[in-house]
Amino acid sequence: MRRRILDRSTTPHRLSSVEEGPDVDIKATLVRGGTSKCWLFSAVDVPRERDTLEALLLAAYGAADRRQIDGVGGATSTTSKAAVVGRSRTPGVDVDYLFAQVGIGENVVEWGSNCGNCATAIALYAVTKGLVPTTGDVTRVRLHNLNTGARLDGLVSTPGGLVPAEGTATVPGTEAAGVPVGLSFLDADGGTTGRLFPTGERRQRLVSGSLAVEATLVDAGAPLALVTAADLGLSATESVEDLRSRLGDLIDLRAAAAVRMGLRTADEPVRHAVPKVGVVGPPAEHKTSEGHVVGEDEHDVAVRMLSMFDVHPVIGLTSAVGVATAALEEGTVVARAARRRTGGTVRLGTPGGVVTVTVTGPAATDGAPRREVTVQRAARVIADATIYTPALV
Amino acid sequence: MRRRILDRSTTPHRLSSVEEGPDVDIKATLVRGGTSKCWLFSAVDVPRERDTLEALLLAAYGAADRRQIDGVGGATSTTSKAAVVGRSRTPGVDVDYLFAQVGIGENVVEWGSNCGNCATAIALYAVTKGLVPTTGDVTRVRLHNLNTGARLDGLVSTPGGLVPAEGTATVPGTEAAGVPVGLSFLDADGGTTGRLFPTGERRQRLVSGSLAVEATLVDAGAPLALVTAADLGLSATESVEDLRSRLGDLIDLRAAAAVRMGLRTADEPVRHAVPKVGVVGPPAEHKTSEGHVVGEDEHDVAVRMLSMFDVHPVIGLTSAVGVATAALEEGTVVARAARRRTGGTVRLGTPGGVVTVTVTGPAATDGAPRREVTVQRAARVIADATIYTPALV
Repeated sequence: MRRRILDRSTTPHRLSSVEEGPDVDIKATLVRGGTSKCWLFSAVDVPRERDTLEALLLAAYGAADRRQIDGVGGATSTTSKAAVVGRSRTPGVDVDYLFAQVGIGENVVEWGSNCGNCATAIALYAVTKGLVPTTGDVTRVRLHNLNTGARLDGLVSTPGGLVPAEGTATVPGTEAAGVPVGLSFLDADGGTTGRLFPTGERRQRLVSGSLAVEATLVDAGAPLALVTAADLGLSATESVEDLRSRLGDLIDLRAAAAVRMGLRTADEPVRHAVPKVGVVGPPAEHKTSEGHVVGEDEHDVAVRMLSMFDVHPVIGLTSAVGVATAALEEGTVVARAARRRTGGTVRLGTPGGVVTVTVTGPAATDGAPRREVTVQRAARVIADATIYTPALV
Repeated sequence: MRRRILDRSTTPHRLSSVEEGPDVDIKATLVRGGTSKCWLFSAVDVPRERDTLEALLLAAYGAADRRQIDGVGGATSTTSKAAVVGRSRTPGVDVDYLFAQVGIGENVVEWGSNCGNCATAIALYAVTKGLVPTTGDVTRVRLHNLNTGARLDGLVSTPGGLVPAEGTATVPGTEAAGVPVGLSFLDADGGTTGRLFPTGERRQRLVSGSLAVEATLVDAGAPLALVTAADLGLSATESVEDLRSRLGDLIDLRAAAAVRMGLRTADEPVRHAVPKVGVVGPPAEHKTSEGHVVGEDEHDVAVRMLSMFDVHPVIGLTSAVGVATAALEEGTVVARAARRRTGGTVRLGTPGGVVTVTVTGPAATDGAPRREVTVQRAARVIADATIYTPALV
């Protein structure tokens, strides 16, 4: 928070600004994580007080303007993200971070959520900036999200103990290459309901109106209702547009699954956020939304998920955890659809491309060590900067 | 072009990248000029060779991706701009700059154009970085655009000889405040046709089909055909949407004016870029596109210009030069519509808000000193950065 330009300026504008509130020069690092761009701030550089921090971010991003033309924001939801990152005092945690979704066209910061893409960016930042020493070819960064309390691990590729500036890993949604960073969910089984299979069954008949399908109701990463695509006359390799014609059926099945999973009683109003619902099918050649061909041998299972009231363009990170977990559990509809694998890696064929998930360790219900599910991501440090904010008001 | 991260990295990814081409760490400064954001690079920091420079910019911006997610670009035409700035060796010029419109979703840089908004950003950058010493309360930066050969002056507010970090000036299109920077056009009269009034008349009857209107055909900044709004049953305070119903008439009048101004013969095909066409009317209270009320006493003349086949959301900088010049010439349709002013400042009421233009000196046709027309703009330095580009290919 040095005032570099202020030091050589005594203009009337500036003086009146100072009376309103301090303007600050603040160091920050721009890092891409997956399909998001996040400006990361060191906790030692920014105010601890939340209102002051919020004012700083709003000024730095030019949040009041819907094009964020006077700041470092990118004026889209995936490019108007920030996080404050610092060493953690909590045992077993390396890094605490506070995630901020900065307003676009309004002076508001949303503090209530987490962002998996930013978590991968933070893991790479932590090793790049020396917050966490490298440990061999992969460095584990134990992350604690201060917004939600979530614990995540970032597994950063550090070949030979060195931090790469770039890499060749990609994620669906962009062709840009980056450093491989795994985003790892520990003890994800039964996080919401307490059980990996809340009904006690690995697959079951799910009925809604005239629909009757075979489904696996699983709670790993998030509660999921995964339906055999063929039971709806689908393949799970449909385009987003084609699958939209079946949104109504899937929304109905989601509502029915919620009752079966104990997420609501039949009398309670329907909630559309849980469980997440989708269809699964055997691997088969198909095209991504960008028109790239995905060969049958390039994925292990085809999956199409909903996001609230639309088809998800790729797959949510927590949904990827659940689908991969179910793929490795004998008897589920996912395991029956999926190519038989030898290891714990599951390649999910999504509308946006292939998402690779690695599952290690036994199920949490089997006792320690806990199961760890890692979604393969990519991140890259784009820039280090000193940001000059206008006067905070 | 230091390789800061490279120095501590010898990963396989990196080594293979180096074989393809160098990756570079490059210093740059993000400056807002008006309604554009431009990354500015010092000429001493970047390659002179155009292909290498282009590869560097494409990599730095993440241009290949339509969301520019892996770079510093903002993924819109007004936020995917760059310029290389250096001291000029040309007598009478302080700063040479090369403007780059960086591709969005394609690895292409357009080198053929200039950008007035970036020119104001460059003027502020030049005094902020010490390329040009300050001279009292306003510092003139004599700019030479290497793309088009254009000469422009930036008049940067430097009260007491000090460079402000921010200011209270605004431009239509954003409410963000910035340092006042005037963008000054010297000797703008007759730039295309050789005469301020190419027909020799200050106003005349312009006929197209059944339309007959009173118009001023003027060449200042750019060739303009300015029509008395009342002759079309308009006020020149219409909303963009309302004026769209009369696009056909204005396009027809533009085609007729081109012939009268000697910009084409009646046999040649119609060109839609010249002259620029619009309507003018007396000041009257109206609302901007953003809904802000502009009082009758807050502008001197109302103007609505076309941009090719649509209504311009504000007014082009060169059109602003022409309208203000005509407002100060007795007998033009603009002078007849405009509030009588005592000085050389003309406030143009546009759909986006008020644009203020200052005209000093006699007309070029009257001999030295030349007339200077200055559009009032605003700029702000947003950040200084080191950008890490992936390997150039």
